[in-house]
Amino acid sequence: MTASENLARLGLTLPKIPVPLAAYVNCVRTGNLLFLSGGLPIDGEKKILGQLPRDVSIEEGQEASRMIVLNRLAVIEAEIGSIDLVTRIVSVNGFVSCTADFYDHPKVINGASELLLEIFGDKGKHARTAIGVASLPLNAAVEINLTVEFQ
Amino acid sequence: MTASENLARLGLTLPKIPVPLAAYVNCVRTGNLLFLSGGLPIDGEKKILGQLPRDVSIEEGQEASRMIVLNRLAVIEAEIGSIDLVTRIVSVNGFVSCTADFYDHPKVINGASELLLEIFGDKGKHARTAIGVASLPLNAAVEINLTVEFQ
Amino acid sequence: MTASENLARLGLTLPKIPVPLAAYVNCVRTGNLLFLSGGLPIDGEKKILGQLPRDVSIEEGQEASRMIVLNRLAVIEAEIGSIDLVTRIVSVNGFVSCTADFYDHPKVINGASELLLEIFGDKGKHARTAIGVASLPLNAAVEINLTVEFQ
Repeated sequence: MTASENLARLGLTLPKIPVPLAAYVNCVRTGNLLFLSGGLPIDGEKKILGQLPRDVSIEEGQEASRMIVLNRLAVIEAEIGSIDLVTRIVSVNGFVSCTADFYDHPKVINGASELLLEIFGDKGKHARTAIGVASLPLNAAVEINLTVEFQ
Repeated sequence: MTASENLARLGLTLPKIPVPLAAYVNCVRTGNLLFLSGGLPIDGEKKILGQLPRDVSIEEGQEASRMIVLNRLAVIEAEIGSIDLVTRIVSVNGFVSCTADFYDHPKVINGASELLLEIFGDKGKHARTAIGVASLPLNAAVEINLTVEFQ
Repeated sequence: MTASENLARLGLTLPKIPVPLAAYVNCVRTGNLLFLSGGLPIDGEKKILGQLPRDVSIEEGQEASRMIVLNRLAVIEAEIGSIDLVTRIVSVNGFVSCTADFYDHPKVINGASELLLEIFGDKGKHARTAIGVASLPLNAAVEINLTVEFQ
């Protein structure tokens, strides 16, 4: 199945492309790579804000990660026409806003990684770095950027 | 206008190339991409140190971001001969040393993004990720790295 | 001397490839670049955990950085067959779990940078970004990812 067929099978639709918060763009292509800006878990009125685990649970953090994947896929689709042209999710960097005693970043960012695998299959297997940060723009709980290879 | 003409028009000059703090180099080229090391807001005696917003204001953070752009451009010029050979600023990662209740990272890193747009025009439009971090080398308020495409 | 000869000369051996903590892979190749996932200072029972400088000294942080280089090289060898096929260490991103008053990240990540230089010589000279973070997966003291060019 193609990525867009998997998306439909999962009952998921892509949100509107986010407006960058500032003087940058959602993605830049160079060669056959697409570098995406960091995405936040914000979709209209739905926002997942605060720090893990104090304000936001691991489950909510995973949901935030999934929201970001969907808005990043919307960016990819707008740029190259279809997510089916993605040949590989190359790398994923996941930033979790958290207190210094939180160590479950991998579980949080798995929300993104598992969804990428469900949508892209083997093409969705990516290199990943997950870290805990002091705070994120707009008090977002999670921020994720990606580098993607396309044909 | 070329990037170097824009730089002159803005009344800006590039500083001396920073000496890396440790066992690394200022940039590495691979193919037609240039990966730059993280730059700090230090230019001779002028340094912007401390945490946002406690020690450093948003305006000072923006100035720090601009200082870093200039020292990163000096690195690019030393490596490829002229900033006019840049065909695209691909990605910018901005790290803001801040307290956990600071959410205005986009405003701080805009100091860098807006200056890149002023100098490079459309070629300066970049993917961006901004995060808040616990601390930075030498107590710098901001650190920024870039990936750049050149001809 | 080749990289593998230097490794032997230094009396170092590569550990077993780490099992990714979650739904991702250790590395992804695109073109002649290899993007590696963030590595942690964990080798069987040996783990360097906690925050700098409270729980972990700079010297221990440097040892953590060296451990990570070795497990990242094991990943590279498993992927492309030999570390001797590396033509350049392109970039290194070092994340130090630390308190807000810690500013010696460059010394900590030098453990990685200096070992890369010893093993790869001029090919080991890399662009680098070092930052201090709130916390890391599994309470690791250091996390490092790399991008590598190979033939």
